[in-house]
Order: sequence, then structure tokens, then C-alpha cells
Amino acid sequence: MKLDKNTKILIIGLGVIGGGYASALTEKGYNVSCITKEQKDIDYALERGMIKHGTTKVDPELIGEAELVIFALYPTVFIEWIEKYQRYFKPGTLITDVTGVKESVVGTVQSMLRDDVEFIPAHPMAGRERSGVEYSDPQVFKGANYIVTPTKKNTAEAIELCKSLGEILGFARISVLSPEEHDEMIAFLSQLTHCIAVALMTCNEAEGLEKYTGDSFRDLTRIAKINDAMWSELFLMNKDALIKEMDAFVGEVEKMKRMLISGDREGLRALMQRSTERRSLFDKPTV
Amino acid sequence: MKLDKNTKILIIGLGVIGGGYASALTEKGYNVSCITKEQKDIDYALERGMIKHGTTKVDPELIGEAELVIFALYPTVFIEWIEKYQRYFKPGTLITDVTGVKESVVGTVQSMLRDDVEFIPAHPMAGRERSGVEYSDPQVFKGANYIVTPTKKNTAEAIELCKSLGEILGFARISVLSPEEHDEMIAFLSQLTHCIAVALMTCNEAEGLEKYTGDSFRDLTRIAKINDAMWSELFLMNKDALIKEMDAFVGEVEKMKRMLISGDREGLRALMQRSTERRSLFDKPTV
Repeated sequence: MKLDKNTKILIIGLGVIGGGYASALTEKGYNVSCITKEQKDIDYALERGMIKHGTTKVDPELIGEAELVIFALYPTVFIEWIEKYQRYFKPGTLITDVTGVKESVVGTVQSMLRDDVEFIPAHPMAGRERSGVEYSDPQVFKGANYIVTPTKKNTAEAIELCKSLGEILGFARISVLSPEEHDEMIAFLSQLTHCIAVALMTCNEAEGLEKYTGDSFRDLTRIAKINDAMWSELFLMNKDALIKEMDAFVGEVEKMKRMLISGDREGLRALMQRSTERRSLFDKPTV
Repeated sequence: MKLDKNTKILIIGLGVIGGGYASALTEKGYNVSCITKEQKDIDYALERGMIKHGTTKVDPELIGEAELVIFALYPTVFIEWIEKYQRYFKPGTLITDVTGVKESVVGTVQSMLRDDVEFIPAHPMAGRERSGVEYSDPQVFKGANYIVTPTKKNTAEAIELCKSLGEILGFARISVLSPEEHDEMIAFLSQLTHCIAVALMTCNEAEGLEKYTGDSFRDLTRIAKINDAMWSELFLMNKDALIKEMDAFVGEVEKMKRMLISGDREGLRALMQRSTERRSLFDKPTV
């Protein structure tokens, strides 16, 4: 299949990410329909011209017409959907996703999927701390990273199409990783950070602290407002990699604690210098 | 003494905070001089009209005229300065500071200070990750917290004057805490967060991670660019309180790890719900 303005694109799940995809694609003149659970979300998207058509029904005709289907669902819901409704896809349909863990989801979906439909997995790294289509905003993709995670089952053509989808959506950097590499990386860069934010937010129950807080505490806990249904799934589906990163991080905190106890000023300074140097690698590219 | 447009204000140390104070006060028509180490910083401030007068010399005449002296130095440098040069203050001078730890600094300075000079300590909670006057910006005080930490040695008049200084500087919330309460609070809200950011930045040495990072990792490590000379001092001067907070935090991370190992989805969700609820207390007040 080719991705052009006539390609029939169907988004399943119109939440904060699905909504952002819909807006970004529609703004560029693509043909976008959607299926989602709540009529109010379809109404919201139609009023704002984000989609051409939407329904709360799992409509065999709409699914059967789609050439590119984008799943923006929680991991377990995505897997269930494929199990139940994949019979409606037409042969040659390409499907992709936005799921934040890859190895288990990709393995499960690719192994159960019909042979005449291809699933090319991707992860747009541009989450928001709020959920729901009303918080969707295609601007968050600008300057952000988009990762395609193909397996041996994927064709070169599908990989290229998925990369160009990332470009159309406005992502600044498109990368390709294996699902395993992705999950190891995401355990550190995304899941560990959410773990830390939640632990920081819940480890001290003192009242009135908000009266004294500065920006650093606010920054470190922005993501402590967390979608518990989705993140508990993501954590558990990637728990081996995540636990490994938690252990490394806790080990580093314990190292700093030993430096404090022994009054090792030079050790602390060396660690802070390394931190400062390494952090400069992560400055957001100017867009 | 009274704080009005004729009050002779002297800032010692024209860095990112001293510079912000200078700009904020001068913009409101106050009379601000400064003493700092580098002539280039004075030139920078004079060119931008941030101060009326500045010198790199510890000028007895300038110090002897000052009615309000604001110390914006590292803790140990502040203490040394008082030791060496307090003889130049005129009787009745009020001094204040911006130091990020209080108990040890306030105890040391108040116990060595002349009886005819009063030190009213304060902490403006609006640090930046860069140091130097060229990064100073009085806008960072807007919406931020300012904490006065008096002891029994302070007069009600000095406490009031220091609170009005915080208001003039543009801080959104002015509070009063004892030095001990301040240090306990700051160990959690500021020092622990800097610890975490440094540990997160240094616990994984993998190369190329910046290619895949999202905003959450960037947010949690913004303060990992850290002034190692200053923060190692702040950490060590408050190490008992900081170690207590580090232990509580690590305990919470270990609790999440146990939930992951046992597959306790409901436990994780409950923790995340508490985190989400508690984080909403910390949203920045609209200014």
C-alpha cells in the first residue's frame, strides 16, 4: 500500500494520542476516520474538524475499507481488539500502534494476526500527563522522538511507510529499534522516571509542603499525575527491564548517601560534574 | 530602619540570585550598590542599569554607609565574609541572605555577629540551573516562594522588613519558618530532588539515549545540570535531614519494586492514584 491523501486511514481509540494523530493527519489533508468508545469524543473531534467520520460501533464496513489502521489503545485492549475483530480487515491492510511497551505486545499481536495483514509497531514518545481527546494536541509531536520497532516479520515497505507516517505527524527524530532494545531503553527513560515521580510524591506525607515548593520539585513530579490504569499495565508488561533500572538507580542514590555520611565533598562534586556534562546531551533540539 | 526608596541597599555577590535581586529592586526605584568578585559582572550590571554603583573591593566606606546588606554568596563564603569584614558595618545595619540551608549558617552567623547589627535570614526559592549574573532574571521570583527563617535573636521589626523585601522582589508567597523546619522541608523539596536528578543522570552510562528521550526524562533531569561547588556544600551542611529523606524515598521505590515482582496491579494503581491526587496540591498558583 501507499500512504497518500487518498489512503483510507482509520484510528482506533480517540484519546490524547489518537486525537493528536487525527488532528495532525487531517491538518495535512489526509483522510481520517475513527472508532472510539464514547460518542462525546467523536462529537468533540467532528466539531473541531479533526476527523472526517467517526463511530462508536465496531463497524465491519468501515474497518473493511481501511488501508492503514492506527491503534491508540491500552496494550491489553489492543490485543483483545485484534483477537475479536481482525476478521474484518481487508487483505493487505497495514496496522500500526502507539503502545509504550513493545516486546510482549508485538510478539502477541504478530503471532495471532492473519497472514494477509501486516502489523508494523511504533512508539511516539510524546505522552501527556492528562488523558482524553480534549487534551490532545499535535504540537507535542514537534521536537519529539518517534520509534519504529519492526521484527523479522515486517517488510521493508511497511517500515518505510511507518517512518514516513512519523514524519507526516511532525516528529523531529525517527528511529528504528528492535522491540527488545526499545523496551530496555523505555524502562530507563520513561518507566523509571514515572516510578521516581510517583515515589517522590508519595514518600513524604507532610501537610502544607506546597507552600514552600520551588520549580525543581514541580518538574520532578509533573508526571506524578499519572493514568494508573495505563501505567500499571506498562510497568507490569516490562517489569524485568524496569526492575533492573530501578536497582541501578537505587544503587546510585545509595552511593551518594555513603558520600554524604563520609563527608566526601570531592566525590559528590565529581558525580555532579559528570551529571552536568551528561545532561547537556539531552537538551531538546531546537525546532 | 525603614525600607524605602532612599534606603542604601548593598548586595554582596552578583550571581544569578544577587543579580535578580539587583534588577528587581532597581526596577522599582530602590537604591542598589554591590560588591562582587569580578569586574566583568559589575560592567554587565552597570550596562543594563541593574545597579547604581559596584566595586570588586571590600570598600569600608560603601559597607559603612549601607543600611540593608543582602548576602548572595555560597554558605561558607558568607560565613568567612562576616568573620573578616563585619567591623565595617555601621551600628543598626540589617543584614539578610539567600542561603539554601539555614540551621548551621544562621547559628554560626548570629553567634559571631556584633550586637549592634541584626541578621534576618531568608531563602528565596527560585534557583536556576545556570549560575552567573548573565542568567539572572527577576521574572523567576514571580509565582515563587520566599521563606523568612528568624530565630529568637530577631526583632519583630526585622522580620516584617524582610517579609516586605520578599514582596518588593515579587515573590508570590511569603512564609515564616524556624531554621530547623526550613532545613527539614528543604531536604525533601529541594535537596532530595537534586539528588534524584543527579542519580538518574549518572546511573545509566548507555550511549545514544538522547535519541529516544521524551519530555519526562528531560523534566526529571533539568536540575542535573548542577553547580557542584554550591550543592555539595548545601548537601553536606544539611546531611542528616537529607539522608532521612533519601531513606524514605528509596523505601518507597523498593515498595513499588515488590509490587512489580508480585504482580500487584491493584497496589500499583492505588499508589498512582494517591500520587495523582497529591500532585494536584502542587500546581503553581496562577500569577
